[in-house]
Amino acid sequence: MSKKTIQIVKKIMSANDQIAEENQEFLNSKNILTINVMASPGSGKTSLILRTIENISSQSKIAVIEGDTAPVTIDSDKISNLNIPVIQINTGGECHLDALMVRTGLEQLDLSNINLLIIENVGNLICPAAFRLGEHFSIVIASIPEGDDKPYKYPNIYRGIQSLILNKTDLLPYVDFNIDYFKQGIEALNPGVAFFPLSCKTGEGFDKWADWLKTRIQEMK
Amino acid sequence: MSKKTIQIVKKIMSANDQIAEENQEFLNSKNILTINVMASPGSGKTSLILRTIENISSQSKIAVIEGDTAPVTIDSDKISNLNIPVIQINTGGECHLDALMVRTGLEQLDLSNINLLIIENVGNLICPAAFRLGEHFSIVIASIPEGDDKPYKYPNIYRGIQSLILNKTDLLPYVDFNIDYFKQGIEALNPGVAFFPLSCKTGEGFDKWADWLKTRIQEMK
Repeated sequence: MSKKTIQIVKKIMSANDQIAEENQEFLNSKNILTINVMASPGSGKTSLILRTIENISSQSKIAVIEGDTAPVTIDSDKISNLNIPVIQINTGGECHLDALMVRTGLEQLDLSNINLLIIENVGNLICPAAFRLGEHFSIVIASIPEGDDKPYKYPNIYRGIQSLILNKTDLLPYVDFNIDYFKQGIEALNPGVAFFPLSCKTGEGFDKWADWLKTRIQEMK
Repeated sequence: MSKKTIQIVKKIMSANDQIAEENQEFLNSKNILTINVMASPGSGKTSLILRTIENISSQSKIAVIEGDTAPVTIDSDKISNLNIPVIQINTGGECHLDALMVRTGLEQLDLSNINLLIIENVGNLICPAAFRLGEHFSIVIASIPEGDDKPYKYPNIYRGIQSLILNKTDLLPYVDFNIDYFKQGIEALNPGVAFFPLSCKTGEGFDKWADWLKTRIQEMK
C-alpha cells in the first residue's frame, strides 16, 4: 500500500483571521485608518477616544465602533453627542469583539469621507488579544492605578501591539507606580513599541499620542 | 405509534457545577470557609488578601489559591513570604479559574487546621462570573479609579455575589466618582449585598470587611 504524505504549505487561516483580512481589505479600499483599542475596564478607553475626537476631528473625519458586554449606551451616547457616527456592538456577555461583529458594524456605519475608524474593544486584558478585527494598528491603554506589574501578569495583550498608552499620569503622586519597572516589562515583550504616558483628564502628554495618530492617518492617504 | 414524553425533572448540571459541588462538599467536611475573589486587573485583589491575612491570621489559619494567566509568581511570592500556604494555578491564557483547576489546587495544598481558603481569581470582570468553583461566598473588588459606571457596563459579575468591596477610597479626592450612582447600579443588580468601601493602602474601612469575614468563619465552625 502506498503511503501518501500531504504537505501543509500554508497555515490554514482561522475563520476569524479570514474575515479580519476581508475587513482590512474593505477599509484599505476606502483609505480608512483603523485602530483597535484594548484595555482593562476603567483604564480610560472612552476618555481617550473622546479627547482624540476633540483633538483631531477638525482635520480628520472619525467613526467609532463601540464594543460592550451589556446593552448599555453610556459610552456610545457620549460619542454620539459629539456628532460622530457610532455603532454599538453588544457582545451578549462575550469578553471580546471578533471580526464578524466588526464586519456587521462596518455594514451599518455611514463611512463616507471617514479617515479614521476607532474600535473600542470590550474592557478585558486577556480575551481581545487573540482576535484580530481587521485593524491596521492595535493599541493598549494601561493606567497608573492598575499598577506597574501588569505587563508581567498579562503579557499576551502587550505583544504585537503598535502603540501603548499609559493613562492617568495625573495620579502618579498618589499611587506607587515605578515607570521604569513597567517599561522593562514592556520592552521584554514588545521592544520599541510606541509609548505615550499621558493624562486624558489634564491633557498632559496627549499631543504626542495625537501626533502619532495624525501621522498614521496621513500615511493612509 | 405511541408518543413518549420525557419530563426533565431536574436541571442537568454542567460538568463544572458538578465538580464545584464536590469541591464544596470537601471543604464543608473540613470546615474551611472558602471565598472566591473576583475583580478587574489592578483593583487590588492581592493587596486585599495580604491585608486580610495580616488582620485575621492570628485567630484563623489561612490558605490561598492564586489564579494567574501567566507563569509569574509576583502575587504568590508576596503571600508565601507571610508563611501562608499558597498554590499558584497558571490558567495558560484562560480568562478565569474553573472548578477542576481548583480541585487540583485543593489536592496539592496542605489544608490541616485551615479555617479560611481564599481563591484569587484571574483579573477579569467578565469570564469568572460564569464559573462556580466550590466557594461559599463570592466577592467582587471594584476600585475608585475604575469609575462609577462599572455595574452598568459589566452587570453579570455583580449578580449573585455576597460581598462587594470598593477599594482605593484614598483616591476619592483625585478622581470623579459618584458613590451614589455606583450604589444605585449595584442595588438594581443585587439588592442588599454587603458593601465595604475601604482602602487597602491606608486601612480606612478595612475593619468592617474583616469583621464580616470573621463572622462567616465563625459560622462554619
